[in-house]
Amino acid sequence: MKPIRVGLLGLGTVGTGVVRIVEGHQQDLLSQTGAAIEIAKILVQDKSKARNISVSADVLTENPWDVIENPEIDIVVEVMGGIDLAKKYMLEALDRGKHIVTANKDLMALHGQEILAKAAEKGCDVFYEASVAGGIPIIRTLVEGFSSDRITKIMGIVNGTTNYILSKMSQEGAAYDDVLKEAQQLGYAESDPTSDVEGFDAARKMTILGTLGFHANVSLSDVTVKGISQVTKEDITYGKRLGYEVKLLGIAERNDEHISISVQPTMVKTSHPLASVNGVYNAVYVYGEAVGETMFYGPGAGEMPTATSIVADLVAVVRNLKLGINGQRGFAPYKEKKLKTDEQIASKNFILLHVADKAGVLAQITQVFAQHEVSLESVLQHPNSLNPNAEIIIITHDANQASMKKVLHQFEAMDVVHAIKSVYRVEG
Amino acid sequence: MKPIRVGLLGLGTVGTGVVRIVEGHQQDLLSQTGAAIEIAKILVQDKSKARNISVSADVLTENPWDVIENPEIDIVVEVMGGIDLAKKYMLEALDRGKHIVTANKDLMALHGQEILAKAAEKGCDVFYEASVAGGIPIIRTLVEGFSSDRITKIMGIVNGTTNYILSKMSQEGAAYDDVLKEAQQLGYAESDPTSDVEGFDAARKMTILGTLGFHANVSLSDVTVKGISQVTKEDITYGKRLGYEVKLLGIAERNDEHISISVQPTMVKTSHPLASVNGVYNAVYVYGEAVGETMFYGPGAGEMPTATSIVADLVAVVRNLKLGINGQRGFAPYKEKKLKTDEQIASKNFILLHVADKAGVLAQITQVFAQHEVSLESVLQHPNSLNPNAEIIIITHDANQASMKKVLHQFEAMDVVHAIKSVYRVEG
Repeated sequence: MKPIRVGLLGLGTVGTGVVRIVEGHQQDLLSQTGAAIEIAKILVQDKSKARNISVSADVLTENPWDVIENPEIDIVVEVMGGIDLAKKYMLEALDRGKHIVTANKDLMALHGQEILAKAAEKGCDVFYEASVAGGIPIIRTLVEGFSSDRITKIMGIVNGTTNYILSKMSQEGAAYDDVLKEAQQLGYAESDPTSDVEGFDAARKMTILGTLGFHANVSLSDVTVKGISQVTKEDITYGKRLGYEVKLLGIAERNDEHISISVQPTMVKTSHPLASVNGVYNAVYVYGEAVGETMFYGPGAGEMPTATSIVADLVAVVRNLKLGINGQRGFAPYKEKKLKTDEQIASKNFILLHVADKAGVLAQITQVFAQHEVSLESVLQHPNSLNPNAEIIIITHDANQASMKKVLHQFEAMDVVHAIKSVYRVEG
Repeated sequence: MKPIRVGLLGLGTVGTGVVRIVEGHQQDLLSQTGAAIEIAKILVQDKSKARNISVSADVLTENPWDVIENPEIDIVVEVMGGIDLAKKYMLEALDRGKHIVTANKDLMALHGQEILAKAAEKGCDVFYEASVAGGIPIIRTLVEGFSSDRITKIMGIVNGTTNYILSKMSQEGAAYDDVLKEAQQLGYAESDPTSDVEGFDAARKMTILGTLGFHANVSLSDVTVKGISQVTKEDITYGKRLGYEVKLLGIAERNDEHISISVQPTMVKTSHPLASVNGVYNAVYVYGEAVGETMFYGPGAGEMPTATSIVADLVAVVRNLKLGINGQRGFAPYKEKKLKTDEQIASKNFILLHVADKAGVLAQITQVFAQHEVSLESVLQHPNSLNPNAEIIIITHDANQASMKKVLHQFEAMDVVHAIKSVYRVEG
């Protein structure tokens, strides 16, 4: 078989990893695919920039069309990031019959449908294993490994930055702002950390997992998102005392045909496998009606883990080229999307209230829950004797969101409730 | 596309699960493959036997040739177990151009090469995801998800029975014999538990994982095997005190081109993700040069989890049928197998000795390690003051097996060493 020529859009961290693996594993890739894989062109912003990898000068180009229009190139690997330009290049490359491998979660979450439709039209592969949970082959697992099952729940720790921050806060009893600063110094968080800490990055990944897991076209706007910037030391301390770790979870659920997708800091029972996923690691927990509980754990980002997933996709494209079946293994959503209402979304909840320190308060509080038919699993008064405020922690049984909103709304209007300090979903 | 007709060999627990999923998920399977999947014939031992699933009488047969020779049947699912008869039926079915899905680890570990060669000759698929770690799609993960990487270590908790027993011993401080009896009553262990508790079942699974992970034809006889029947309450108690859980691990390792594969009870550091895999759950930890640490967790057995993997394989065969590419996605080993010698296999070790209670013993013991260039991480004297014996626990740094054998051999000849009570590999 003739050598397969690959064009890279971008030579940042991940692009460098791709070059390293393709060059370092030449012989294995040849044995596995029957074809030599060659990086023929790489789009960079500045050819003269010093790099920590040696690439022959005639492979580098500053002109995207040297990749996109290059008749020698079979597969385009998009690792430049961003949305508009990456999308334009990808669509142009597809128009020219080139297959695509990408790590671009933002693009796939926002414009995946359009890109995959174009690929189907052109008989091209578009693979994006690296877009979710870096080195964990979770997309393959959902699409092929669990093709026979009906997945009803996906819970993911899919953002390493926030998991690093929450793990540190938990392990060291440190405050959010201090740990964020440290994460920025270590390069685990961006100087503008909004996308990570406010949950937007995780929401994009959950859009992709929800679409694949539930066979319905989930949009980013379907995901309700809450980040970790309001998580306090107290929340984590109280959580631990009650047997929970605070994790930023993406949660996609399905009952019958109705789905809900969210990203939110969640109290996860310490016995749950997600509770012990720490640092920059990612993990995706998948519950299927037939298989039951499964979990997939690994590095969520980084040069080599992400590159592993990209090159595994490259291998898949090359195998398809050999068999002449590109563009025919796509898995188009075939179910109508029906979103759950607040009445249909249920979970346990953890609520921390500051209340007036006088007799009868607890009765008033629990009366509100009873009124909205929210039953309680446990109530803890004055969890911290050093705190001058009278505090109450309540853990509910499964309650629907509509009822919970009414309860919280009523608390806001009550004199004896000084503050609703925290509300968390509870899992595990 | 015409309906795809499937013949089942066997209708035990797993076969029943396959029928349940194929019937319960008709519409999803059709949407995913473009073809209806129909269970056309099922080989059973006794047609008149009462079953907890309703199957039309003309689907059942007591004659294997009704499945194997049936021109209507495209795919044979082998869930009868055993070796000789299952092998015969499988080869006969392949001879007639039928694709195979099997959960038979024994058969694949012992005769996988022969069966896969026949399949390649006949242009047929043979898929066996369910043969290792039930509901966890670990074979796909190794073969496709990590196709780009160089896997250097696979550690698996791949036998649910032994993990249940060890978890119970750890959680309840119970003795091996008592927990085994309980496991037998609960149906987690066979009345003759040898295959599970002596590590033979795990060894078969590691043969399959080693072959796929290292691209070399591993034989069952390459696996050194030690079971859990000698694990004592004391070992578990001392392990916990030092921060370890005892787990029966299958360990496949590669350095350069040399590999070693073993199954043995191992002291696993509690911080390692495998240490918290409890009960009948399975988990496979995979270390790749590029990806780093990953772990895949889920149910290792049971009707529905195992059936999930079988039907996912069925879906893969049907997709291949649609594309006309059966028998072409096999992944034949392409590396020569080179086994490590004892000098090349290294690990930390945990050693529990009963020694004479007099001055100078520790010096004599540590002298033996020094003589064979085994350096020590820690030495703990008299870990249990209630024990009338003088005990010493030693944890070594990485030491090769040849040196360790010499050390232990020398201990056997020493008067001051009353007994070498336990020796464990240490991981994590």
